[in-house]
Amino acid sequence: MALHIFDPIQDAEIRTTAKLLKDLNGDAKVHFVQIDRLDPPKKQAIHYLNVERNSAPGTQLPFIPRRTYAYYYLNDEMPLYKALCNVSENRVIANQETPEGTVGPLLPDDVSAIEDTIMEHPVVVAEIAKLNIDRIHYKHSRLGNLGYTVVCEPWMYGTDSPHDKIPLIQAYMYMKLDHPEGNHYSIPLRFSPVFEYLTHKFVRMDYLPAGADEKFIQETLPYKQLETVEYHPDLIENFTERGGLKPLIVSQPEGASFDIEGSKIKWQGWEFRISTNVREGFALYDVFFKGRSLFYRVALNEMTVPYADGRAPFHRKQAFDLGDCGFGNTANSLALGCHCLGVIKYLDTRRADQDGNPVLIPSTICMHEQDYGLLYLHKNYRNGNTVATRRREFVVQTIATVANYEYVVNLIFDQAGAITVQVRATGILSTMPNDDGNTTDFSTIVGPGVTAPFHQHLLSFRFDTRIDGDNNTVVYDDYVPMEENTAINPYNVGFRQERTFMEKSGYVEQSPFTNRTYKVINENSINPVTLKPVGYKFEMPAKQMIAASKNSYNVKRAHYATQQFWVSKYHDDQLYAAGEFTNQSQKDTGLSEWANGTESVRNSDTVVWATLALTHPPATEQFPVMTSDFLQFLVTPSSFFTRNPALDVPLANNNFNKSVYYEDAQKSAGFVPGTSSSASCCKSNI
Amino acid sequence: MALHIFDPIQDAEIRTTAKLLKDLNGDAKVHFVQIDRLDPPKKQAIHYLNVERNSAPGTQLPFIPRRTYAYYYLNDEMPLYKALCNVSENRVIANQETPEGTVGPLLPDDVSAIEDTIMEHPVVVAEIAKLNIDRIHYKHSRLGNLGYTVVCEPWMYGTDSPHDKIPLIQAYMYMKLDHPEGNHYSIPLRFSPVFEYLTHKFVRMDYLPAGADEKFIQETLPYKQLETVEYHPDLIENFTERGGLKPLIVSQPEGASFDIEGSKIKWQGWEFRISTNVREGFALYDVFFKGRSLFYRVALNEMTVPYADGRAPFHRKQAFDLGDCGFGNTANSLALGCHCLGVIKYLDTRRADQDGNPVLIPSTICMHEQDYGLLYLHKNYRNGNTVATRRREFVVQTIATVANYEYVVNLIFDQAGAITVQVRATGILSTMPNDDGNTTDFSTIVGPGVTAPFHQHLLSFRFDTRIDGDNNTVVYDDYVPMEENTAINPYNVGFRQERTFMEKSGYVEQSPFTNRTYKVINENSINPVTLKPVGYKFEMPAKQMIAASKNSYNVKRAHYATQQFWVSKYHDDQLYAAGEFTNQSQKDTGLSEWANGTESVRNSDTVVWATLALTHPPATEQFPVMTSDFLQFLVTPSSFFTRNPALDVPLANNNFNKSVYYEDAQKSAGFVPGTSSSASCCKSNI
Repeated sequence: MALHIFDPIQDAEIRTTAKLLKDLNGDAKVHFVQIDRLDPPKKQAIHYLNVERNSAPGTQLPFIPRRTYAYYYLNDEMPLYKALCNVSENRVIANQETPEGTVGPLLPDDVSAIEDTIMEHPVVVAEIAKLNIDRIHYKHSRLGNLGYTVVCEPWMYGTDSPHDKIPLIQAYMYMKLDHPEGNHYSIPLRFSPVFEYLTHKFVRMDYLPAGADEKFIQETLPYKQLETVEYHPDLIENFTERGGLKPLIVSQPEGASFDIEGSKIKWQGWEFRISTNVREGFALYDVFFKGRSLFYRVALNEMTVPYADGRAPFHRKQAFDLGDCGFGNTANSLALGCHCLGVIKYLDTRRADQDGNPVLIPSTICMHEQDYGLLYLHKNYRNGNTVATRRREFVVQTIATVANYEYVVNLIFDQAGAITVQVRATGILSTMPNDDGNTTDFSTIVGPGVTAPFHQHLLSFRFDTRIDGDNNTVVYDDYVPMEENTAINPYNVGFRQERTFMEKSGYVEQSPFTNRTYKVINENSINPVTLKPVGYKFEMPAKQMIAASKNSYNVKRAHYATQQFWVSKYHDDQLYAAGEFTNQSQKDTGLSEWANGTESVRNSDTVVWATLALTHPPATEQFPVMTSDFLQFLVTPSSFFTRNPALDVPLANNNFNKSVYYEDAQKSAGFVPGTSSSASCCKSNI
Repeated sequence: MALHIFDPIQDAEIRTTAKLLKDLNGDAKVHFVQIDRLDPPKKQAIHYLNVERNSAPGTQLPFIPRRTYAYYYLNDEMPLYKALCNVSENRVIANQETPEGTVGPLLPDDVSAIEDTIMEHPVVVAEIAKLNIDRIHYKHSRLGNLGYTVVCEPWMYGTDSPHDKIPLIQAYMYMKLDHPEGNHYSIPLRFSPVFEYLTHKFVRMDYLPAGADEKFIQETLPYKQLETVEYHPDLIENFTERGGLKPLIVSQPEGASFDIEGSKIKWQGWEFRISTNVREGFALYDVFFKGRSLFYRVALNEMTVPYADGRAPFHRKQAFDLGDCGFGNTANSLALGCHCLGVIKYLDTRRADQDGNPVLIPSTICMHEQDYGLLYLHKNYRNGNTVATRRREFVVQTIATVANYEYVVNLIFDQAGAITVQVRATGILSTMPNDDGNTTDFSTIVGPGVTAPFHQHLLSFRFDTRIDGDNNTVVYDDYVPMEENTAINPYNVGFRQERTFMEKSGYVEQSPFTNRTYKVINENSINPVTLKPVGYKFEMPAKQMIAASKNSYNVKRAHYATQQFWVSKYHDDQLYAAGEFTNQSQKDTGLSEWANGTESVRNSDTVVWATLALTHPPATEQFPVMTSDFLQFLVTPSSFFTRNPALDVPLANNNFNKSVYYEDAQKSAGFVPGTSSSASCCKSNI
């Protein structure tokens, strides 16, 4: 079968891209840092989708060549090149140097390689020797004597001056118990080498403050042994596994309720394509519910993680986890019964290595159903009759590990046309050394000699909207008290809606105290019941945006993070909120340029960008591994349908759901679900 | 076994209370409107709990008499009486008239009785006759000809003047198809009789506007037939049940993980008592996690629902669903496979009827476990080793039906010491008549001739805190940019925490843009790792509070709803945010008096009150029954423990969780969970 325009990149397409560009560059060493599929021009794609949707089965779809992009260096030198290839027709479409100073994203293999270099470099080896760790060991109550080893954690260098125009790595160094599960984040060391990323040349050694200011910087001394804080059961002293947790089995004896054909998913009225990619993890395309168009493309497109710590070199800790690393590149391989529960469908990601060979990352996406309580319920108190439906959800999940942190991204679909965008932050805090007893107002001590700085996570989700048609309008609604003592409001209880239309690209300021609500409406589609345009609502939690001063590189590089809700006019290739190249960037080349108030966006091809923000002052409960922090927002129909679109969901009943009484379940080991329960279900009719 | 001080009221205690008060009042007709258990004085209760916790099993607990309260009228006349009884020793402790004009809560039986009276009253019968509905019928495609009937929905009268000092009922009148499942909210009528609640005397007939102002008021005319909007599958025209949904069975073959002994619940380190009651639905007492005290008492204590519509008589639509009606009185009887899924434990509520006889409301609480994704996860990217734990939750649920609306209250406990307080609003919008084509900026047309006004839900949750000991302090933390260009912040990236202590009772203003976070700390218990006081954090979404003018009765009666987070000093019997008596109240006699800034609260016996708010402009998707709107906040340890308290949770593995591949589940009908999966689980060790 021919590939769909939104099918993810194929191994052969990676190979073709690599070969085309190697051939183009003759004898030079081509060092790829990213190869992936590029979306077709939207105009072509919309035509393709319209033909696909409106034609008889088997109709020939328009031919649109499959395209790829590649970022690469030649001979491990700047500049960074960017090329576009037509892999359907085996040719290079474009190939050019990126602007001076542009640094490409990190490739996992390159990070591993420089990690090895750093650990073996004489300057680093000499510094490690000063710790004199061979003399000490930790006497573990169950494992006996354990030695210590040193770990190198390469970080994106960040930015603090306009003069760093070569790719650099800042390595944070740690120690750990010499055991595979040892938690190195528990022993941050006080030196931090800087290396050139491409040439692996040593640049300098930074020394880290371990207290409120730079007077806590010192030369490397023999390691003074402190208790470590471990997360693995094998290493936790006096560990007793918590008892009492009984199995909870989710089974679907008749199979799952979703259908998959290639990249196409169908579930309970929803239809969309899903395409994994190395930068965003995945994107959804051509999203419909109940036969009506909602979105052309939906994806998490960027996340920046700026830290609150102003002391050099920590001030440069600002990750762009998608632009610098890629959520596909760093995706976990998900496993049954661990990352997802129930009946699970997995999808893979393909990336390229530095030579342009395809690399399979298996099972980066899991998809499954879950029950999440009641969808809706009403009891007629006069006769006791109840209508009740269970809320079944369809979850698309990916998990990225960016060194210490894990991000669990869930798109959750319900049966009533809403999408919950949920991110769970888990994993391990990025830590710093701390002299005994130093407390600060920008970090939390989380263990002996170790502190975790405050920081933020600011994620941008891009929704290329197609709400009931190609032209959309962004509005926001405020709810304000009515004027007092008027004919309509004599008792002063009234409040009303005030609607504001976004005429130009830009942002909407947050205003939770007027219950400001962002909506994407279609002025060409009037709801026959409300007599107003149909729409979808973005219900976002009011949050602190980026807290650094606007005079910092943190903000200049992530201008998108200053506001929660942005609107831009659609243009091909405007996909990433902070711009295409974020690593060591000096400014945001994304929304700061595309949503600058100059373009008309009303009743046009609009894109909205939602910034989900978390200010994170760590707590001891979040170390040595943190229980998930939840961030989420809701995208839900707002007078898009003429009535509740879930009225056709079957009413709940226990012949279907097979719940059981606690008393019965406790009595019988090996209890068969359903035996005590068939008589019981809510009275849904007389 | 002797009753525990927090066990819910018993039938015998209701009977004793009624008998004591009937005996006290001789020949007068005693008309009870509420009887329930009263908590012991806290000082006695704390002593009892300390003895219970610290003594050897079998130790005699201190004797504390069980107490009840009763609200009643004599001979169906004002005043309302309030009595306290010692039911252990069979005596009346106190009995007194409430202040002049105090109106008691509504009793379900009384509401049904007045509904009957109103429907049969000649004035109402005459008005209904003018509709001339016998002449018409609706031709249903499957059910044939259906006639129409009229429905009366009695409402709490509300307040608009200081002169209404007798209990009144405002009845909103509706029509519906003459079928048990007909949706009367689809045909609001335009007349609304007012009756005396106790004497059933007719007071007057109000006529309702059906457009932007009072010129839309008209005399009752023959009903002009319009299509109704139905929610029940039997009545929906052209109904096709949505296909494709396969069963999803939650089973616990080894039983559930929670233990129950009387009112005591134990689950995964949590211990608390649960006591159902008629006003709040239920309260939790003596809440501990991992052997440390958190809360003395936790309950939803009030909800007000003010409407945005200023037109008489709609301006009086302001429900106090707990104070006026009671979430126990209106609790649904929950059923297997309908309201809760899995292995379910139910608890009952007991109330009194107007004669003081006990009435059982069975299964008003359901308790069960659910899986909700990952609790925490970390992958060591250097060796691929992963630690992952599933998030098991314990859910305590009750559902109240207050005429049109349903409220699903969930307290969700996790394995890491956090409680999610979640409310789902579902059911049916309260509707008003609307002339064809009238749109307003304070309501949404939801069907032919019917509109739903904007409104709000403002719920107050009361936490009587006992965080690691009896004396607590409330603080709030803001996160603010550091001063620019200083020694600690030369690059202007820094931000820091600013802590403010609540010295006096009062409220904290919302400040989402500084990430303001409310915490209850214990200044007498210092975390040995952070070197700062231990605490629990209240993570609340920033929301619009009550939108009516402060010069309205809506606000005067619900002052608590003007702010999100309140602090008061503990006093016995200060339980309800808007005061003890809310029905037809003229002012808030709760937090406006108790948290008025005069009492010192630092390092003392403190109570915090969290207002969860939803501004609700209806959408067509929310009619004729609305998909649940979610409101929630999180109560979570904040450097209360020295490290993650869930490190002892068993790591996830598929021998325990028995998930299966989609492909396997789809292939095999009658598939046995677990057969394809035992080999697969995440690599948690080398």
